[in-house]
Amino acid sequence: MELVAVVISLALAEYFVILVKCGQARGRLGVAAPSTTGNPEFERYFRAQYNTLEQLVIFVPAMIMFGAYVSTFWAALLGIVFIAGRFLYARGYVIDPARRGPGFLLTVVANGVLLLGGLIGALLRWL
Amino acid sequence: MELVAVVISLALAEYFVILVKCGQARGRLGVAAPSTTGNPEFERYFRAQYNTLEQLVIFVPAMIMFGAYVSTFWAALLGIVFIAGRFLYARGYVIDPARRGPGFLLTVVANGVLLLGGLIGALLRWL
Amino acid sequence: MELVAVVISLALAEYFVILVKCGQARGRLGVAAPSTTGNPEFERYFRAQYNTLEQLVIFVPAMIMFGAYVSTFWAALLGIVFIAGRFLYARGYVIDPARRGPGFLLTVVANGVLLLGGLIGALLRWL
Repeated sequence: MELVAVVISLALAEYFVILVKCGQARGRLGVAAPSTTGNPEFERYFRAQYNTLEQLVIFVPAMIMFGAYVSTFWAALLGIVFIAGRFLYARGYVIDPARRGPGFLLTVVANGVLLLGGLIGALLRWL
Repeated sequence: MELVAVVISLALAEYFVILVKCGQARGRLGVAAPSTTGNPEFERYFRAQYNTLEQLVIFVPAMIMFGAYVSTFWAALLGIVFIAGRFLYARGYVIDPARRGPGFLLTVVANGVLLLGGLIGALLRWL
Repeated sequence: MELVAVVISLALAEYFVILVKCGQARGRLGVAAPSTTGNPEFERYFRAQYNTLEQLVIFVPAMIMFGAYVSTFWAALLGIVFIAGRFLYARGYVIDPARRGPGFLLTVVANGVLLLGGLIGALLRWL
């Protein structure tokens, strides 16, 4: 499970960087807290960050369950796909929302497989 | 703990569906990214999704701690109440925000009991 | 790890209180769901809550990994710094967004150390 922990840490470190970028965009573009709207460029940084948050809430427990009940190696591999997909997603979104598609697909497919695999693995162990 | 993992997976699968519904509403109602406001129906889907996110961040670790330190059976039962409450909540909210009350109450009570039980259980083990 | 579970529970209990305060502010200030903007005071409660959510998604797994691979004592200590920082942050933000800085710094530094420590610890175990 240490390998799974390494990949989870890397995904969280990626999110940490996305958070920092979003905070820097707030300063650079002059969006005063608590506002989160009004500047289209900031809104792209902001939404890229929150979409990553939405996916991470599934990703972290799904990685642990897939790693524990199915395979640590495949969990790690799917986790790397997730991290790469999130990189593409955030990079694309910030340039143009229309370019967030491919990265989104990669992360959602990786997340879906991790979750479904974890569920089936846990079910088979429990029954 | 496999039973707890099964229930956590089901709650995350429910959230996955809520995410998909929210994404579909964005397309159907023509809300262009990165915007999240402007269309009242989309805003209901969006807020139902985010409120579920807010609760899941407590739910997943609370389920694990309650399952590990108190009872896996009661954790699973409270988890099923949470999942049912979230279903009522999201369904109600999308129709009319005034109808989100009962489902909200169910999930928050289940979450509160899981968290408090997990805290007391961990404290008693540690002391 | 029971000590780590206690500190995680306390951080989640603090978030539960922040959620309740945010919900109460919605009622008191007359912000009708699904709206989240329009009232500056509510927006401060709302953003304080969501910023805490953003940090918790890193905090909970980072605490577990730091506790498992580095030190439960130091994980607990950093966790208490995080909880104290979040208290200062939310209290400050609600009064004036300019006063959210010190609490934000405390929580982000604690979170960064937990995450980096957890990553290095997991890497060293895995290699």
